[in-house]
Amino acid sequence: MNNIDLIIDKLLKFRDERDWKQFHNSKDLALAINIEAGELLELFLWKESENFDKEKLNEELADILAYCLLLAEKNKIDIFKILEDKIEKNALKYPVSKSKGTSKKYDEL
Amino acid sequence: MNNIDLIIDKLLKFRDERDWKQFHNSKDLALAINIEAGELLELFLWKESENFDKEKLNEELADILAYCLLLAEKNKIDIFKILEDKIEKNALKYPVSKSKGTSKKYDEL
Amino acid sequence: MNNIDLIIDKLLKFRDERDWKQFHNSKDLALAINIEAGELLELFLWKESENFDKEKLNEELADILAYCLLLAEKNKIDIFKILEDKIEKNALKYPVSKSKGTSKKYDEL
Amino acid sequence: MNNIDLIIDKLLKFRDERDWKQFHNSKDLALAINIEAGELLELFLWKESENFDKEKLNEELADILAYCLLLAEKNKIDIFKILEDKIEKNALKYPVSKSKGTSKKYDEL
Repeated sequence: MNNIDLIIDKLLKFRDERDWKQFHNSKDLALAINIEAGELLELFLWKESENFDKEKLNEELADILAYCLLLAEKNKIDIFKILEDKIEKNALKYPVSKSKGTSKKYDEL
Repeated sequence: MNNIDLIIDKLLKFRDERDWKQFHNSKDLALAINIEAGELLELFLWKESENFDKEKLNEELADILAYCLLLAEKNKIDIFKILEDKIEKNALKYPVSKSKGTSKKYDEL
Repeated sequence: MNNIDLIIDKLLKFRDERDWKQFHNSKDLALAINIEAGELLELFLWKESENFDKEKLNEELADILAYCLLLAEKNKIDIFKILEDKIEKNALKYPVSKSKGTSKKYDEL
Repeated sequence: MNNIDLIIDKLLKFRDERDWKQFHNSKDLALAINIEAGELLELFLWKESENFDKEKLNEELADILAYCLLLAEKNKIDIFKILEDKIEKNALKYPVSKSKGTSKKYDEL
């Protein structure tokens, strides 16, 4: 069992001990990801890019990841596979020759 | 090397081939996570909880995870450690005896 | 009839001509606000603070405001009243003597 | 002076008494809108569509609107004009004949 599967097991155990599976539909898990992403963003509000609370970064990032893993688990998604697929897809959308050194979106390249 | 480290290596290689490290400060990575989270949310808009485009879910979830991994890497964060820590912390915030079967927030328990 | 009420009337007419009232529950309107807020945020990604597409700013801001007005209308909320109330409440949370010149949150003052 | 201009005046007075103009660049105002939108979304998490805290809805909606008005003011945007323009533009994107009774996005119609 790899590390991610171990974490997913702990998250499911945590959820099931509290009988929370009933709340964890895919739509609300997507809401939860957005809410936690907003809390992450708050660490940077009115601040320079690297001037933030490192301890809180750990916590907010963990919250986002936890809900991502729960949403993946609910939909039987292999996160390694989707990440590999996305990197391949983005390599086509952003060829090195066109996208090197520019932050433009693919539809503006 | 575990699977997550392999993916992070691929993400860094993708970034560095395009000379994008210059754009990837922590604040903008937090923005990117929020933007992708918004795109994930859009899959569920005006819809029932499990009635959404599964193919797009894979893509949006991969985007969020990719930026989470890049933000973690930039800040030398071990995602397994922060996830373990967060589960422990939440176990204190949400004791089974109080939180079982209710979706209330810890400050309302 | 003031300007805001005129706009709300146009938004409702637009909605009702398309028979979209059935989709506009409060939760999905909150999702829509978040999705549009994410699109607004995208205008600033990897960019300096004032270096963005002004034309798109108009559009994304209009989208957010439109859904805010629809959510207010659905819940019989007077936006002028809630804005007045919030300014008063924030004046107590952020007294001038403590908050002048600092971007700290009220719970850190 | 219309009601919106009166509210904007109060928001600017509140900001200037606290010397906060220095923090209110367009990018951070966009972050603030997203953060408040996330707090709005939290009212609906794990809940049925109309089962939420009405008092908190007033507050979160006021926060979003306040930052929208500040972002508009900073960029000399007339919110009535952009709302009118957007309704016209959406009428072309979503013709009644195609969009009636369906929640599909314009690119799926």
